[in-house]
Amino acid sequence: MKNLLGREIPDYIDGHGPVKPFQGSFSNCGVKTRSAVKLTSVLPNDQKVLPSLDDLFDKLKITDGMTISFHHHLRNGDYVLNMVMEKLAARGLKGLTIAASSIFPIHAPLVKHMETGVVTGLITNYLSGPVAEAVSRGRLLKPAIMQTHGGRARAIESGDLKIDVAFLAAPTADPYGNINGVYGKSACGSLGYAVADAEYANVTVAITDHLVPYPANPIEISQIYIDYVVKIDSIGDPQGIVSGTTKITKDPVALIIAKRAAQLIKASGLVREGMSFQTGAGGTSLAVAAELKKIMQDEGVVGSFASGGITGYLVEMLEEGLFRSLLDVQCFDLKAVESYRDNPSHQFMSASMYGNPHTKGAVVNNLDIMILGATEIDLDFNVNVTTGSSGVIMGGSGGHSDTAAGSKLAIVVTNLMKARLPIIRDKVLTATTPGESIDAVVTERGIAVNPRRLDLLEQLSQAQLPLMTIGELKQLAEKITGIPKPIETSEEIVAVIEYRDGTVIDVVRKVQE
Amino acid sequence: MKNLLGREIPDYIDGHGPVKPFQGSFSNCGVKTRSAVKLTSVLPNDQKVLPSLDDLFDKLKITDGMTISFHHHLRNGDYVLNMVMEKLAARGLKGLTIAASSIFPIHAPLVKHMETGVVTGLITNYLSGPVAEAVSRGRLLKPAIMQTHGGRARAIESGDLKIDVAFLAAPTADPYGNINGVYGKSACGSLGYAVADAEYANVTVAITDHLVPYPANPIEISQIYIDYVVKIDSIGDPQGIVSGTTKITKDPVALIIAKRAAQLIKASGLVREGMSFQTGAGGTSLAVAAELKKIMQDEGVVGSFASGGITGYLVEMLEEGLFRSLLDVQCFDLKAVESYRDNPSHQFMSASMYGNPHTKGAVVNNLDIMILGATEIDLDFNVNVTTGSSGVIMGGSGGHSDTAAGSKLAIVVTNLMKARLPIIRDKVLTATTPGESIDAVVTERGIAVNPRRLDLLEQLSQAQLPLMTIGELKQLAEKITGIPKPIETSEEIVAVIEYRDGTVIDVVRKVQE
Repeated sequence: MKNLLGREIPDYIDGHGPVKPFQGSFSNCGVKTRSAVKLTSVLPNDQKVLPSLDDLFDKLKITDGMTISFHHHLRNGDYVLNMVMEKLAARGLKGLTIAASSIFPIHAPLVKHMETGVVTGLITNYLSGPVAEAVSRGRLLKPAIMQTHGGRARAIESGDLKIDVAFLAAPTADPYGNINGVYGKSACGSLGYAVADAEYANVTVAITDHLVPYPANPIEISQIYIDYVVKIDSIGDPQGIVSGTTKITKDPVALIIAKRAAQLIKASGLVREGMSFQTGAGGTSLAVAAELKKIMQDEGVVGSFASGGITGYLVEMLEEGLFRSLLDVQCFDLKAVESYRDNPSHQFMSASMYGNPHTKGAVVNNLDIMILGATEIDLDFNVNVTTGSSGVIMGGSGGHSDTAAGSKLAIVVTNLMKARLPIIRDKVLTATTPGESIDAVVTERGIAVNPRRLDLLEQLSQAQLPLMTIGELKQLAEKITGIPKPIETSEEIVAVIEYRDGTVIDVVRKVQE
Repeated sequence: MKNLLGREIPDYIDGHGPVKPFQGSFSNCGVKTRSAVKLTSVLPNDQKVLPSLDDLFDKLKITDGMTISFHHHLRNGDYVLNMVMEKLAARGLKGLTIAASSIFPIHAPLVKHMETGVVTGLITNYLSGPVAEAVSRGRLLKPAIMQTHGGRARAIESGDLKIDVAFLAAPTADPYGNINGVYGKSACGSLGYAVADAEYANVTVAITDHLVPYPANPIEISQIYIDYVVKIDSIGDPQGIVSGTTKITKDPVALIIAKRAAQLIKASGLVREGMSFQTGAGGTSLAVAAELKKIMQDEGVVGSFASGGITGYLVEMLEEGLFRSLLDVQCFDLKAVESYRDNPSHQFMSASMYGNPHTKGAVVNNLDIMILGATEIDLDFNVNVTTGSSGVIMGGSGGHSDTAAGSKLAIVVTNLMKARLPIIRDKVLTATTPGESIDAVVTERGIAVNPRRLDLLEQLSQAQLPLMTIGELKQLAEKITGIPKPIETSEEIVAVIEYRDGTVIDVVRKVQE
């Protein structure tokens, strides 16, 4: 069958099950269910602290085929996933599914576990490094399931993704399982992505390298959701957890793109009292923030909130009074961690509050302006942030589809060409975010507005902006690069791309070797 | 049938259903379920703010027989319950059940709604004033169900108590339903009792008199749980919401009791680093806190936390460094509200985190010392805080049974006689908290330790304390008062007393008129 984007998707995918095709950003909403949860009551005098991972695994009845989960707040500094998997492999377990909110290069040991059958399933929102490579080459028995940040929370809360045991890397924990991410040598800030795991897993384990006396302060995730606490020497490498500083690009082309994006934002009329804004941590994205800041200062505008993964740059904007609040699901750098710890206006949000479409209203629904990246965009404005130019997985939606769907103005900022390849294609190899959610593409050569946004086009008609069609942008690039050869893929499906509502927006097929 | 306390309880109670008898404080624990919740997804551009209660009720499909809930953070200053009920009565609704965490004298208009059949059911943790009187006299069609603070959260989360519409009185709300209790003219502090309602009701409405721009700060209850927001002129009377100051008793007998209680605590060995403590807001209870404070200062002990409804007196102990943290489900006075708002060590807890026995560990499980009141105690140490000397309902468990069950040392402090009646009886008229949870009774004439606590008796053997049996205490009082006439009750059951685990610990029968 073909879904709404015309992507060819089987009705049934082995190792995944029946497919609900993507039928539009908000077609699968309405009345939904947060699922029931089983828990074992903890009584007075019950102890939660176990002296080691081995004691934990002696106690937990982990069996072949179970699904275990991890969050990615320790990013490329995370030791917890590898440690747990090494123990489980040593205990001879097979056929496990890993539900990790993201996978980074540090998780390379997973490749071995995939090859030995310890791990046969992977569910994640973002996939990079050796594991991404291995999945793309068909090394995982079942197709990986790639979700969005909001979609993962939805899947967990709805029961679509059932977690047997959740492992929560906890920079600070007390002996009764109250945890936070702001203190300790592995401090990472907000633990927003871990909330659904804690609330809905059958069993939840906090793994910490900083056990503090009861009660922890602050309490980001409550004791009522935690079964066990294990103290180990180190849960992560601070160097990989948070970057020291966030830098705005100095690349002149990127700066031109940023300036254009800011001009577009200004012309859209969205720079106004109470405006809200989100951007990623990439250099170009931050350059847009810097341009926007100037406009806000010139016009004396105070925004309501900036959201998402939070960088020091957004913290500065908060401190300068340009936003009244930050809503933080994850801190990207030390400055963000410190601000989140010390500034009450820098507030917590869970992944569900951030982007779950099946709640009574996620934060993305209130976003005005969202700055997004792309590895490919097609003539229908569909965006690929999942596979790279060789067809190999090198990312995933994360919050891309969530914020694009929710925001009033979702802008993709990108060079027209990267590594001598054009970014705009007839069809993206992998559709991560549907074109209906994307309002404009800004490149160094021109701006294409999605023709669905007639209102925006009218709004912009008086502005001095280098508007063109996306087809014209494509031609501009192809004049220089030529038309690139399509990537050859086999029929074998190595990953299923779930839209945030759980429908299938695309699949990734194995690249020809 | 008789339950574990020997109380005669029918197998089936009309208007209540089948009865699960109380069988011991922790007999009904183990594997439990938090129930599934249906919700309607809120999409971008959906608006939650409605201009008036009438617009709300035009929109909500409230029908005869539904259960609607309220929380009691505005206490005897609450306007919301009365306003909502007046509107529903005017719309001709019948047979509603009110699930309100507590009922105060201000809710007197409920009596009329009971008499006209608008309200036929009442589920609450604490019941005082004209409504208590009316329930006791059989004016409510179905027996009232009286729960504990932790038990109410349990009932809601388990699905035993299904709420069709929850009305949340919100001292501060933003247009997308993020709410807090710390700002606005009706500020009440922590909204701990409202959390389960927000999370589990079919529909949730925030009613506020202080609508702030998005996003509210702080966010105590998230937008993801709120369907509608209604702005009205005033949700409550500040005079009734929080008392200005908290006063320690000057009554010399009460001060003697407090001193004795403190001596008992000291002798128990629980005054030690990391100790935890809870007491109510009554004058004698606070006098115990004052005595305990002196001991802690003398011994240089720093406690881990004090919890519960928080008073300015506990705030002072926090500020003086005698506790590292406060865990706050409800603020009793202005000083507590300000501290909760401004001091990060003064932390939030939900009713579930406070005392729900079917979680992975409530705060009461970590309590060392709990100071409790009583209207009657019997020779088995069972405590009545539900009915008064005439057999009329004048209170209820609130957190009494929760904290008694969880704490290591649960002490009832009471005068030996009140209004010329002895407090210690052969059998309490109404068993609110089972004797197995009560460790000692402290009166002005002597201290009785529960004989189940052999360990405590041994610990105290070297201390110079006026220990006696509870029977001796009873005789002491009866020498003065004589043996009081038993209260005559009819067979008609007017209230069912649920223990925190949902079993029935007792019933209240209609008093003879």
